[in-house]
Amino acid sequence: MSFKVAIRSFKTLSYVGSYKKIRERNLKFYCAAVIGAGYMAYQQHKNSSADMKEILQIKNYMAEPVTPISQLEKNPNDMKTQMELLIMRIQAEFCRALEKEEDEEAKFLVDRWTRKEGGGGITCVLQDGRVFEKAGVNISVVSGTLPPAAVQQMKTRGKNFDSQELPFFAAGVSAVIHPRNPMVPTIHFNYRYFEVTDKNGVQWWFGGGTDLTPYYLNEEDATHFHLTLKHACDAHDKTYYGRFKKWCDDYFSIPHRGERRGVGGIFFDDIDSPDQTSAFNFVTSCAEAVIPSYIPIVQKHKDDAYGYHERQWQLLRRGRYVEFNLIYDRGTKFGLFTPEARYESILMSLPLNAKWEYMHTPKPNSAEEKLMKVLKEPRDWLHLEQARQVA
Amino acid sequence: MSFKVAIRSFKTLSYVGSYKKIRERNLKFYCAAVIGAGYMAYQQHKNSSADMKEILQIKNYMAEPVTPISQLEKNPNDMKTQMELLIMRIQAEFCRALEKEEDEEAKFLVDRWTRKEGGGGITCVLQDGRVFEKAGVNISVVSGTLPPAAVQQMKTRGKNFDSQELPFFAAGVSAVIHPRNPMVPTIHFNYRYFEVTDKNGVQWWFGGGTDLTPYYLNEEDATHFHLTLKHACDAHDKTYYGRFKKWCDDYFSIPHRGERRGVGGIFFDDIDSPDQTSAFNFVTSCAEAVIPSYIPIVQKHKDDAYGYHERQWQLLRRGRYVEFNLIYDRGTKFGLFTPEARYESILMSLPLNAKWEYMHTPKPNSAEEKLMKVLKEPRDWLHLEQARQVA
Repeated sequence: MSFKVAIRSFKTLSYVGSYKKIRERNLKFYCAAVIGAGYMAYQQHKNSSADMKEILQIKNYMAEPVTPISQLEKNPNDMKTQMELLIMRIQAEFCRALEKEEDEEAKFLVDRWTRKEGGGGITCVLQDGRVFEKAGVNISVVSGTLPPAAVQQMKTRGKNFDSQELPFFAAGVSAVIHPRNPMVPTIHFNYRYFEVTDKNGVQWWFGGGTDLTPYYLNEEDATHFHLTLKHACDAHDKTYYGRFKKWCDDYFSIPHRGERRGVGGIFFDDIDSPDQTSAFNFVTSCAEAVIPSYIPIVQKHKDDAYGYHERQWQLLRRGRYVEFNLIYDRGTKFGLFTPEARYESILMSLPLNAKWEYMHTPKPNSAEEKLMKVLKEPRDWLHLEQARQVA
Repeated sequence: MSFKVAIRSFKTLSYVGSYKKIRERNLKFYCAAVIGAGYMAYQQHKNSSADMKEILQIKNYMAEPVTPISQLEKNPNDMKTQMELLIMRIQAEFCRALEKEEDEEAKFLVDRWTRKEGGGGITCVLQDGRVFEKAGVNISVVSGTLPPAAVQQMKTRGKNFDSQELPFFAAGVSAVIHPRNPMVPTIHFNYRYFEVTDKNGVQWWFGGGTDLTPYYLNEEDATHFHLTLKHACDAHDKTYYGRFKKWCDDYFSIPHRGERRGVGGIFFDDIDSPDQTSAFNFVTSCAEAVIPSYIPIVQKHKDDAYGYHERQWQLLRRGRYVEFNLIYDRGTKFGLFTPEARYESILMSLPLNAKWEYMHTPKPNSAEEKLMKVLKEPRDWLHLEQARQVA
């Protein structure tokens, strides 16, 4: 393991290890501590450049990168290379962190696939484990020509292209983890980089987000989750967390039910400022915040007691997850409507089991109703509004 | 029970009762017999007029009609009245026929609901029965103003309206029955009537269809199902079954998987010829064919032996059902995107339980693979092509 990888792993582990202690301290102190640590991490990123010998850790990845290694080595400073190496590393670190929480024999199945038109991906799935009922961590690195429908869709979202068919490149990592224990929330994250070339040159942007879907509300966990994301954001732009938290609440919405999918997190699209390296460093911080935001929650609750009632509620909420993903999620629809799409990688986000009961309503004052209130009225977990008023 | 209702009930029962005997006879004979019976039924319809005293059998319905009875009695020959009475009767007959197959205590829950803008519906759901895991039979009778988006959607489907917002009336019955035993297929049907008024007057049309989704293929059942539908069609137009069977195969398709939802049936939209009464009589025949097409199959298989393996396969196929309904079904999307939609009535079509496994593939030469072949390549169940070539 190289020095840099060792440093990163140590950082991750120390986050996880220190969570228990942190829980006993007060919020203010923790907040200051993580923001401080975040700033140091930020400085380190700013000074780093893509050094192939250190970064290209093939033996640590889940599979060989999608792009031939010789090509990656030739273009170490190209953002396409940097993004591919980032998502390879994030995928491997996250899969290993999840496997550590599982029984010995539960390991990720790794599928490396290629795409006719160009590129491919690596889909890692762990199914029917003791801790994780279904966990999918996917990376894809694809290129080719955007069909007119896709160009049109991007235009409606504010992109200004001069043609109907355009060469593009897209690289991203996405994951959805559905634990077995209803006291452990589902997490989803996705970080992606796009390049589209028209006659004016290359247009690039980043998108992404991380969000949490609990079945039973634990306010301490939700606060920890949001605080970890805020720390990742604050190191880059103090306005990011507030804006991207709201964007997340707005995006992961199930309008026909008037509820959100979960307790939110952050979500952003079309990040193309202040410059490419800064944007990449921001996305790197967010992706690196996934493990410290989530694994401590898994460790805390994976052996919590639960019964038939809690399992049934979890299955109903998983039905809502399916509703959001199949009806509203742009990524899922964009993927499925793409000819020759690898639908198994797109639909790995769906839970192993889900349930739909007619007219199910939680009992008044139950734990289930407590969750529903937060899903209907998103909460300001870090009391930003209060802090703003005091200031 | 009035004479006419008694005749109808007798017809239904005799269909069901005679199925076992019919199964032993050869296809040709059965075909001739049902077409003959169908023709007699057709003559009876042609000669009948909407006689309120005979037809308005409130005590037999699942609930009071949506439209006030005084209003229905005032306009007995209005197609809006005739359609509402038809769907009330079809709902009641089908719910009672399903309850007969259930244990004594399993009864439909009846929800009568109203809609702010005008009209309402009656949603009947039987959940967690011994025979039916989830059965939903819904009628709705609604009126109001079509929003511009809906007018636009209708225009893209060939309707020619001169305005952006138009008064409309819609009445329909729809049902989805998910049995517990994997050897019993799921059935879906929907029959509907629309009126839209623009400056040129009232434009009206009917739509509908009935289709079957087996978990294990039984060719005899599929043939019986299609034959019953063909009989209902042939009494009105010999070209209907062939055209509507193909329309059904095309509509209930899951493009991202390259498979159909089930073994098809019939599907049609925009039926506005040869005249309103004939079109209504055709829809009536189709709706009345539901019980004889399906109940014999339920009776034949509801106590078939099955195990864990078959249940798991059924749950996976129910996942595909969810995919079709949430991603592709026009009715579901149209419903959910309508403000103030009663989503519980729209989503009652979803199964109680569903499952998604990553990369599930049936074993070669298994019963599961046999089903998949038919879903990937729809079959000409009644050998129409062969018959055409011989002729």
